[in-house]
Amino acid sequence: MAKKRNAFYAQSGGVTAVINASACGVIETARQHKDKIGKVYAGRNGIIGALTENLIDTSKESAAAIAALRHTPAGAFGSCRFKLKSLEDNRAQYERLIEVFKAHNIGYFFYNGGGDSADTCLKVSQLSQKLGYPLQAIHVPKTVDNDLPITDCCPGFGSVAKYVAVSTREASLDVASMAKTSTKVFVLEVMGRHAGWIAAAGGLASDKNCELPIVILFPEIPFDRKAFLARVDAMVKKHGYCSIVVSEGVKGDDGKFLSDQGLRDAFGHAQLGGVAPVIANMVKDALGYKFHWAVADYLQRAARHIASKTDVDQAYALGKAAVELALKGENSVMPAILRTSDKPYRWKMGVAPLSKVANVEKMMPRNFISKDGFGITEKCRAYLAPLIRGEDYPPYRDGLPQYVQLKNVAVPKKLNNFEI
Amino acid sequence: MAKKRNAFYAQSGGVTAVINASACGVIETARQHKDKIGKVYAGRNGIIGALTENLIDTSKESAAAIAALRHTPAGAFGSCRFKLKSLEDNRAQYERLIEVFKAHNIGYFFYNGGGDSADTCLKVSQLSQKLGYPLQAIHVPKTVDNDLPITDCCPGFGSVAKYVAVSTREASLDVASMAKTSTKVFVLEVMGRHAGWIAAAGGLASDKNCELPIVILFPEIPFDRKAFLARVDAMVKKHGYCSIVVSEGVKGDDGKFLSDQGLRDAFGHAQLGGVAPVIANMVKDALGYKFHWAVADYLQRAARHIASKTDVDQAYALGKAAVELALKGENSVMPAILRTSDKPYRWKMGVAPLSKVANVEKMMPRNFISKDGFGITEKCRAYLAPLIRGEDYPPYRDGLPQYVQLKNVAVPKKLNNFEI
Repeated sequence: MAKKRNAFYAQSGGVTAVINASACGVIETARQHKDKIGKVYAGRNGIIGALTENLIDTSKESAAAIAALRHTPAGAFGSCRFKLKSLEDNRAQYERLIEVFKAHNIGYFFYNGGGDSADTCLKVSQLSQKLGYPLQAIHVPKTVDNDLPITDCCPGFGSVAKYVAVSTREASLDVASMAKTSTKVFVLEVMGRHAGWIAAAGGLASDKNCELPIVILFPEIPFDRKAFLARVDAMVKKHGYCSIVVSEGVKGDDGKFLSDQGLRDAFGHAQLGGVAPVIANMVKDALGYKFHWAVADYLQRAARHIASKTDVDQAYALGKAAVELALKGENSVMPAILRTSDKPYRWKMGVAPLSKVANVEKMMPRNFISKDGFGITEKCRAYLAPLIRGEDYPPYRDGLPQYVQLKNVAVPKKLNNFEI
Repeated sequence: MAKKRNAFYAQSGGVTAVINASACGVIETARQHKDKIGKVYAGRNGIIGALTENLIDTSKESAAAIAALRHTPAGAFGSCRFKLKSLEDNRAQYERLIEVFKAHNIGYFFYNGGGDSADTCLKVSQLSQKLGYPLQAIHVPKTVDNDLPITDCCPGFGSVAKYVAVSTREASLDVASMAKTSTKVFVLEVMGRHAGWIAAAGGLASDKNCELPIVILFPEIPFDRKAFLARVDAMVKKHGYCSIVVSEGVKGDDGKFLSDQGLRDAFGHAQLGGVAPVIANMVKDALGYKFHWAVADYLQRAARHIASKTDVDQAYALGKAAVELALKGENSVMPAILRTSDKPYRWKMGVAPLSKVANVEKMMPRNFISKDGFGITEKCRAYLAPLIRGEDYPPYRDGLPQYVQLKNVAVPKKLNNFEI
């Protein structure tokens, strides 16, 4: 085994505005330690790239191109939604990974993803030990859902939160202007299938500098139609208008997603709709208020133009820390953000064993949601506020952000094909 | 009649990210001419404020608050969707306006809106002459629809265009990362009931620095299902994914809005949906591609955080020019942007008679849309590109843009109530 070994880096699951900042942290830090780390190979389309030996040679990219990853959203090497089966069900996949790593002298495995990826990372590490192939597996946290344990927050979340807070503030001012003769209720649908972290960020739009009437619908709180309509009606009667931020994952008493309304078109075909139009139509039918609705979808998680500086800094720092942990000989761990103070906001880099990260979901604590279930508490505000702080604008040319598209040069294959 | 007279300013119709920049231009310029212009009274909720004598005394606002209007989206005094009837049908409304203006010594009428407002402005001017009440009526252009004649572009449009171009670029990079195993088609619905100017801006997302597969659906081009699906399929086969920017106003061969699909919920109730889910479901049914869709709605026109500097500068300049025209004795006119050069982009302030502005809609020229109907031409690009140029970020505190909320102090009423 050569002393100097290569590194593998892959992006997993839904991408974010800052996952490339973590990639930038990994690659730039690895380049500073050429005595120990050879090349950084990236998986083309995530872990699928490793399984199919579709590796990208990041050493072919200029320092400027790698630096530009810091301000470029989405996954520069491609991501994938592909969960490796359990070791028992498909040992062949894990063995194939080790085979590919061996063929390319890969000694460091950096996996950039959420909870599922942490689990994969842990298993890869365990198998490498069983097979006697030395590999240091480090997980780099990432998820807009903000549901990983131990780490104070997850890269990607702060920027979505900022997007949602800013957009809710802007749209609310718009509705306020129109309410006298037109739109009185505005509904914004945001991501969050299980946890309401992103919806909660809508609550930041209103603060003592800018008070706005906002109702939030969390997936953690079973939807109560009567209470909701009463709340909206009271808001409109008091303020003249109301904004509603609704999580895509809101469910009724029956446990079914509210978005799942069995919509049919004129021909009886099932239509997949969002929850925003459902809520908007409900308000219109019950209260008669004119409405507008928006569904932010990918715009929210791709919005690098309004990324949080805190988020970008942490995403980069976590990528850097992952490499530093590897150089210290760590294995089966994840660097984590540890908050040491709310005001002023301070954090330090910590480290979490993957066994405590994999398969654990961090939901919104009940005391982050107001008693009536329609807003956030001061405790929640104190937690969220620092995460959206600071702006980190990308460079522009001719009015458009200059995002880098890498060359993504393939590493020559050495092995036979592998079917996945 | 006192030599020094007051001014009236009102915002009309759908608000924009920069209509307050025009308000700022009007008020700041008026304040520089206190020898001729007394106070600037704003209509609370647009022209309704004038009819009901609900006037706001802008002299109660500090210079800092007025300056902050330049970076604050939406309508600071409230807008309205209220079209005055024709002079024949409701002469009483026009006479009431003159009565209110007379009671408050208003000699200048600045009306900030689109085509309908230009028509109202013209009629008010004509009636003031008939009634022998001297009033200078100046229209300040504004509309995200960009459909006013004579002026090269309309304030509000450049910022929506920048939002749509930036968002389309960001979301496209996101889809590109996910396409291997998940989403292959992304649909973004944008405003534009009659004209495709806003949808066209989606085409700017792709340029020689960043090539992206984008299909645009314009309201000017009757929707051709077969050609559209073939185009999307070819894009996905070639690039692995595709982004679709669809104007809310797209119509089928039958002249009906595509969004009007007669959607019913499980109980048979009619549901108001957008066109994005219709297009997305169509792609899924015919081609089987996984999709995501977004509806930008108010977010796009309220997005002051990503406003175009060109747009902000022009909005302010038009407000300023309106006051200067009034001081020169002009009446029944609208200041207009006249483009003198594409490269480098140069423009000068012109002036248009309202008789040539009222009731004229400027549609996209056919040679701005590519032959196949799914993209923009170089001519269109040359027109659009300068309008999104430059960034003009608002100030932030704790991660949120600091938008001003005015005190909006009422002017004491002098007249009886008026029913509208």
